[in-house]
Amino acid sequence: MNFSSKLIENAVTEISRLPGIGKKTALRLTLHLLKQKAPVTSALTEALIKLRNEIRYCAICHNVADKEVCSICESTKRDKSLICVVEDLPDVLALENTNQYSGLYHVLGGVISPIQGIGPDEINIASLMQRILHPPSGTPVEEVILALPATMEGDTTSFFITRKLKDHGVGVSTIARGIPVGSELEYTDEITLGRSILSRIKYSAE
Amino acid sequence: MNFSSKLIENAVTEISRLPGIGKKTALRLTLHLLKQKAPVTSALTEALIKLRNEIRYCAICHNVADKEVCSICESTKRDKSLICVVEDLPDVLALENTNQYSGLYHVLGGVISPIQGIGPDEINIASLMQRILHPPSGTPVEEVILALPATMEGDTTSFFITRKLKDHGVGVSTIARGIPVGSELEYTDEITLGRSILSRIKYSAE
Repeated sequence: MNFSSKLIENAVTEISRLPGIGKKTALRLTLHLLKQKAPVTSALTEALIKLRNEIRYCAICHNVADKEVCSICESTKRDKSLICVVEDLPDVLALENTNQYSGLYHVLGGVISPIQGIGPDEINIASLMQRILHPPSGTPVEEVILALPATMEGDTTSFFITRKLKDHGVGVSTIARGIPVGSELEYTDEITLGRSILSRIKYSAE
Repeated sequence: MNFSSKLIENAVTEISRLPGIGKKTALRLTLHLLKQKAPVTSALTEALIKLRNEIRYCAICHNVADKEVCSICESTKRDKSLICVVEDLPDVLALENTNQYSGLYHVLGGVISPIQGIGPDEINIASLMQRILHPPSGTPVEEVILALPATMEGDTTSFFITRKLKDHGVGVSTIARGIPVGSELEYTDEITLGRSILSRIKYSAE
């Protein structure tokens, strides 16, 4: 595209580096910002600069934090005997938004993937073992919930962690795989359907 | 949504103010920026800050410019006897990208819309008349091409400008409305089809 202004060209180039945003959308966003009053742009840029400069990662669980320890690890209302292991930050947000889980988290920052050269040492497994063996809160960890992706890499990582925890008297579980609420049986893929019938849940008679 | 970090929350709020970007996309973009190295974010914020602080509008045609007069008005290669009147900046970019037009532009910054309280004085019509009566380049303007939207407001504006120019010996034309290249007759709306048959183009026998 041919822009009559270098300033617009630069802004479009930088915005279009973001995932899922092409040149046309970038141009639309740029012209939108130009139409708005200056504080709209400065609020956006300040939030991004602050985010990038001040963000820290929790020393315990590697979740994003505004200080040394994140608000979840710090909270007195959370069940510190439960640790849910996730691949990355969005997973924590997704689980938090269910309002169904009140334990702690552990963000691995990836999953074991020999093809991509990611071994157990490249992700936060050592610090997971550390906090299970020497809980920073003093409360012993009773259960580790593996909420990793249902891929070969995710399964490998789950298996690796399960084996590591074997002799430490900690329960290990994984989140249920099954048919999403609202989905229909006939449109569910075979693997999910297969898993859902294998891990069927018994109704109690009472 | 419940974010464990105020910094992420602020970034998501600001990004989701952009048109067509919801909270989920904003979160994805925020986490993407966090995953990238710091210069990716600073290049983006610097481009936006520079854009907002340094952008100027051409004193002649109101197009965006990096200096007093935009590169199109300044160019010696453009036909200064032609002025194409458009509603806003994206229209200039769209026409420039056709590589078919070599005249000048005039950006109105809107169209006459009594419902929205936009009268002829709210848009750049006075400066259009000024540059037609006293051309800054010295070359007299021979033709004004109206490239305004095919809406009631666009038509009102075209009519208003045509009437204003009546006694000044300047030709007035409008861009052709018709069936887009590659479209099929049967799927074209009636108004476009009607206009395209009324403004049919004669083939010459030679």
